[in-house]
Amino acid sequence: MGRPRSFDESTILDKALEVFWSRGFEGTSIQDLVDATGLGRASLYGAFGDKQQLFEKVIAHYIARADAAMRQGKGDATVGAALTRIVRTWVDSACPRTGPRGCFLSQSGISADPATPFAREVLASTLQRAEKALEALIRSGQTAGEIAADRDPRKAARLLVVLQQGLVTSARAGWGRSQLQAAADEAVAQLLGRGS
Amino acid sequence: MGRPRSFDESTILDKALEVFWSRGFEGTSIQDLVDATGLGRASLYGAFGDKQQLFEKVIAHYIARADAAMRQGKGDATVGAALTRIVRTWVDSACPRTGPRGCFLSQSGISADPATPFAREVLASTLQRAEKALEALIRSGQTAGEIAADRDPRKAARLLVVLQQGLVTSARAGWGRSQLQAAADEAVAQLLGRGS
Repeated sequence: MGRPRSFDESTILDKALEVFWSRGFEGTSIQDLVDATGLGRASLYGAFGDKQQLFEKVIAHYIARADAAMRQGKGDATVGAALTRIVRTWVDSACPRTGPRGCFLSQSGISADPATPFAREVLASTLQRAEKALEALIRSGQTAGEIAADRDPRKAARLLVVLQQGLVTSARAGWGRSQLQAAADEAVAQLLGRGS
Repeated sequence: MGRPRSFDESTILDKALEVFWSRGFEGTSIQDLVDATGLGRASLYGAFGDKQQLFEKVIAHYIARADAAMRQGKGDATVGAALTRIVRTWVDSACPRTGPRGCFLSQSGISADPATPFAREVLASTLQRAEKALEALIRSGQTAGEIAADRDPRKAARLLVVLQQGLVTSARAGWGRSQLQAAADEAVAQLLGRGS
């Protein structure tokens, strides 16, 4: 009879995320995960499976958080306010307070490592979900008269997704938070047809 | 007395670029470069120096080509036409006909590899030069009445540079050429205040 799990799954996944984030999938050893989570090897395997399975759970955990940030938008007074909040979330995640590490998913997807097609697929489907959510938001903006009717909501949503990816890369190229913020705000201003 | 150089420097640099592009700086061995260029080890060292020096020459060569593509813009009839041509060049380089390899400079800069701070610096200064060139182009567009006067040329230029980076990342995430093209064209349409 095993002991009951005495750890918080979400906290463990956050810690594992940090490790995969800074070292990548291939560069992370089981020992790294044991050290970071404070769990024994047997508990780690018992609760999360092997490295690949843990990685998949970490990614699912990360996506759930990102989705929650996107859904929050329903509380915003206007579509413009929602878009501004969303792009600022992107800047925060591209440019965290603790060093230039970029977006977890993009980093995994970018890796030329053939061992992580899974990460690439997850990234692709995440971008697709973000695109659909943004498209719906842009349509609401058109209905509300905030966004011009001759804007193609799908193309505009796609452009925002490209922006999000670009923020991560630019952060890694050494851009500071204020530069990223200026670019992100400008994207929203252009979509809303406002001046800079 | 050495033999005269019987190779075309530009061709050799193109070949070395291909190798660094697909394998990264760390992943490229001198033997890889010998195989790709067809030059002997001694000729390679004699003409280009060690791996780091050759890499620097390859990057300088790549930048000279990218700058030439940007300058071509002076022949365009309108600023809108110039911008469209430029973003399409970006799509071509993010999404070459021969597989998803992305933009050479971004790939080098993204690498977490501490051995390539040089690549990161070069990427940062290349982005800065692109930003200045785009800012000047946007100002001309304002003078010509193609772009609204209340657009901040610097922020708009920054946004385009972020777009360029995002196109590369999105290409690696599996986006096809038509998706990238739609996003790039949408960026120009929004800047010019045109419908999609």
